[in-house]
Amino acid sequence: MNTVIDNKSYKIHLTDNFEQILTQYIALNTYSAVVYLFDENTHRLYGNTPYFQYQKTIIIAAGEVNKNITTCTAVWQQLLAHNADRNTLLVNVGGGLVSDLGGFVASTYKRGIHFINIPTTLLACIDASIGGKTAINTVDAKNMIGTFCNPQLVIIDTHFFNTLPQQELLSGFGEILKHGLIASTTYFEACNNLNLNDTTLDWYAIIATSLQIKKDIVAQDFEERNVRKMLNAGHTVGHAIETILTNTSAMHYTHGECVAIGLLIEAYIAKQQQLLATKDFILIEKCITKYYLVNTILSLINDWEAFDNAIYNDKKNTNATINASLLTNIGTCQINSTITTHEIKNAIAQYCN
Amino acid sequence: MNTVIDNKSYKIHLTDNFEQILTQYIALNTYSAVVYLFDENTHRLYGNTPYFQYQKTIIIAAGEVNKNITTCTAVWQQLLAHNADRNTLLVNVGGGLVSDLGGFVASTYKRGIHFINIPTTLLACIDASIGGKTAINTVDAKNMIGTFCNPQLVIIDTHFFNTLPQQELLSGFGEILKHGLIASTTYFEACNNLNLNDTTLDWYAIIATSLQIKKDIVAQDFEERNVRKMLNAGHTVGHAIETILTNTSAMHYTHGECVAIGLLIEAYIAKQQQLLATKDFILIEKCITKYYLVNTILSLINDWEAFDNAIYNDKKNTNATINASLLTNIGTCQINSTITTHEIKNAIAQYCN
Repeated sequence: MNTVIDNKSYKIHLTDNFEQILTQYIALNTYSAVVYLFDENTHRLYGNTPYFQYQKTIIIAAGEVNKNITTCTAVWQQLLAHNADRNTLLVNVGGGLVSDLGGFVASTYKRGIHFINIPTTLLACIDASIGGKTAINTVDAKNMIGTFCNPQLVIIDTHFFNTLPQQELLSGFGEILKHGLIASTTYFEACNNLNLNDTTLDWYAIIATSLQIKKDIVAQDFEERNVRKMLNAGHTVGHAIETILTNTSAMHYTHGECVAIGLLIEAYIAKQQQLLATKDFILIEKCITKYYLVNTILSLINDWEAFDNAIYNDKKNTNATINASLLTNIGTCQINSTITTHEIKNAIAQYCN
Repeated sequence: MNTVIDNKSYKIHLTDNFEQILTQYIALNTYSAVVYLFDENTHRLYGNTPYFQYQKTIIIAAGEVNKNITTCTAVWQQLLAHNADRNTLLVNVGGGLVSDLGGFVASTYKRGIHFINIPTTLLACIDASIGGKTAINTVDAKNMIGTFCNPQLVIIDTHFFNTLPQQELLSGFGEILKHGLIASTTYFEACNNLNLNDTTLDWYAIIATSLQIKKDIVAQDFEERNVRKMLNAGHTVGHAIETILTNTSAMHYTHGECVAIGLLIEAYIAKQQQLLATKDFILIEKCITKYYLVNTILSLINDWEAFDNAIYNDKKNTNATINASLLTNIGTCQINSTITTHEIKNAIAQYCN
C-alpha cells in the first residue's frame, strides 16, 4: 500500500509502512537534526518502538485543553534546549493537538522550520493533511491563533488506528460526512451506510476521497477568503459546542462529534430558511442521529452567555454578523449565510429534552 | 514631502503628514475595524492627538523586556475583546517592540490579519519597513519566535523623531552604519561624517538610502536562506550582548548600540582571520568608537556562560557552528563565516579595561 496524493508543494503518502517513507525522506534531505513531537498518549504507545526510541523527542500533555500558548512556549523552549537550528525538521506524531500545535510551533520557531505530520487519528488524517492550518486555542475561543503553513510531507499509516478508541473514529467520521454533505451526494450516501465497527473497512480509500474533495476546495482559496469557507460547514455551531464542553463539562466529547452535531443544527436552520429541502434535511438528520449522541451532547450546554460569545468569536464572522456555511442540497453549500443566535437556539431546542 | 518606495506587494511612504496617507489608505479599503497598537510611551505622546484620540486602541508596556509571549497573549485577548474579525486592520504605532510584536500578533491572529507599521523611532523605520520580519523574544534568546509576514503599508513620518532621545537615534544609526559597511563604501563614508545632533539632518534621504540597500538584498532572498544573512552583520555578537544586558544589567542600552559594537567585534575577528584589511578595520574602529560607548557597554558583560548560550542560540547557526556575516571590505560581506567563542572573547577583551 503506497498511494501518493500530490498537493503542489508537498506529498501525502497513504502507506502501511510509515517508517520506510520517513527514512527515505530524511535521507534525501540535509537536516541538521530531526526532533519528534508526541503527546503523552502517542509517546506511551509508540515512543519506545524501534523507529522512535533513540530519537530526540518532545512530549506534551494530551488533550485539547493543552492546545494553548503555555504548551507552545514549552515546546519552543525544548527546541532551544535541543539546540534546534533553522535547518531542523520537526515531525509531529499524534492527533490534532500535535499536528495543529506542532505546525504552529514550527511555523514560528526562528521564523519557520520544516515539519512533517504523521497523523495518528482519523480526524488528524483528514484535518492535518491538506489546508496548511496550524492553530492553538485561547481561553475564549478555539483555533484563534495560528498560521497558514504547509508541512513538507504527510504520512498516513492506518496501523495507528489499531489503538484508537471508537469515539476517535466517530470524530474523524464527522469531518468525512461533512465532505460528502458539501461536495458529493455519492460520497455522502456511501458514508451513510458504513459500519464503523467493521475492522475490514478500507480507511485508505475513504481518506483518499475526503482528501481529494478538500484538496480541490483549498486549491481554489488557500487563505480562506471565499469558497474554502465551505469546509467550515457545521463548524459555526460545532466549535461553539466544543468550546462550551471543553470549558464547562467533565464529559469528554471530540471535535468531530461536535462538528457532526453542528452540521445537523445548521442543516435545521438551512431547512427553516428554505435553503435546504425538507427531504434532504430528513436524510441528514437520520444519518447524524444514527451515529452521534445528539441529545446527550446538546443537553450539556448550560451557559448560554458563554455559548453566544463562542459563536460570535468565530473566525468567519465579519462586522458582528454570524456567517455560516449552510447546505443548499446534499452535495452543495452556500458560504456567508447569515444566521442568528435565536435560530441556533431554536434548532438546538428541537434536540434537547 | 512624500516619497514612495514600492516594495512589491506594498508601499513605504516617507511623508511629513502620516495622517493624510493613513486616512486615504483606510478610505480606499473595506476593513470592518481598525485597531491601533501603542506602547505606553507612544500612547502618552500621541494617543490623545486629534487623529488617534477616538480610535480603538491597545496599549502595551514599553521596553524590550515586554517583547514576549505574555504581551502577545494580552494583545490577542484584547483583539478578541474588540470583536476584531479577520477583516480587521491593526496599525502598529511605535518603535521596534510595537512593530515586531504587533506584526507577529497580526500574522497569527485568526491565522493572519492585515497590519500597517508607523515606526516612530529611527531604528524601527529601518527595521520594520522592509523584510517582513515579525518577532518576539523567549527568556533565552532574542527574536526566537516569529514569522515572515509583510505589512500592507509602512508610513514613515520623521515628526515622531522630535520626541526621540538621542540614544534612540544612535540605535537606528547602528543599523544605518551596517548598511554602509555591507553594501556601499560611499554611504558608509557619508554616514561616518554625520553629526547626529544636527537638527537639520535630512533623515528622509538617509532612511531612503538604507531602505534601498535593504530592499535589494531582501528581494534576492526573502526567507533568509543565503544572501539576506548579510543583514545580520554585527548581529551574531550584537544580539548576544543585548540578551546579556537585558537579563543582567539595570543599565539600558539599545539594539542598535549593541549591533554597532557587534559590528566592531566582528570586524576585529574578520581582520584577525585576514578577511578584512587592517586599514579598513581601523576606519571602522574609529567610526564606531566615535559614536558608541564601546568600552562601557562591553565591560557590563559578566556572565560568560549566558553569553555563550546566547551566541549559540543565534538563528543563523547550523549544526552548532557559529555562523557570522563578516566584512571582507567596507562595502562587502561574506555570509556563513565560521567564528568561535574564543575569537569573540579575545576581540571583546581588546575593548575592555
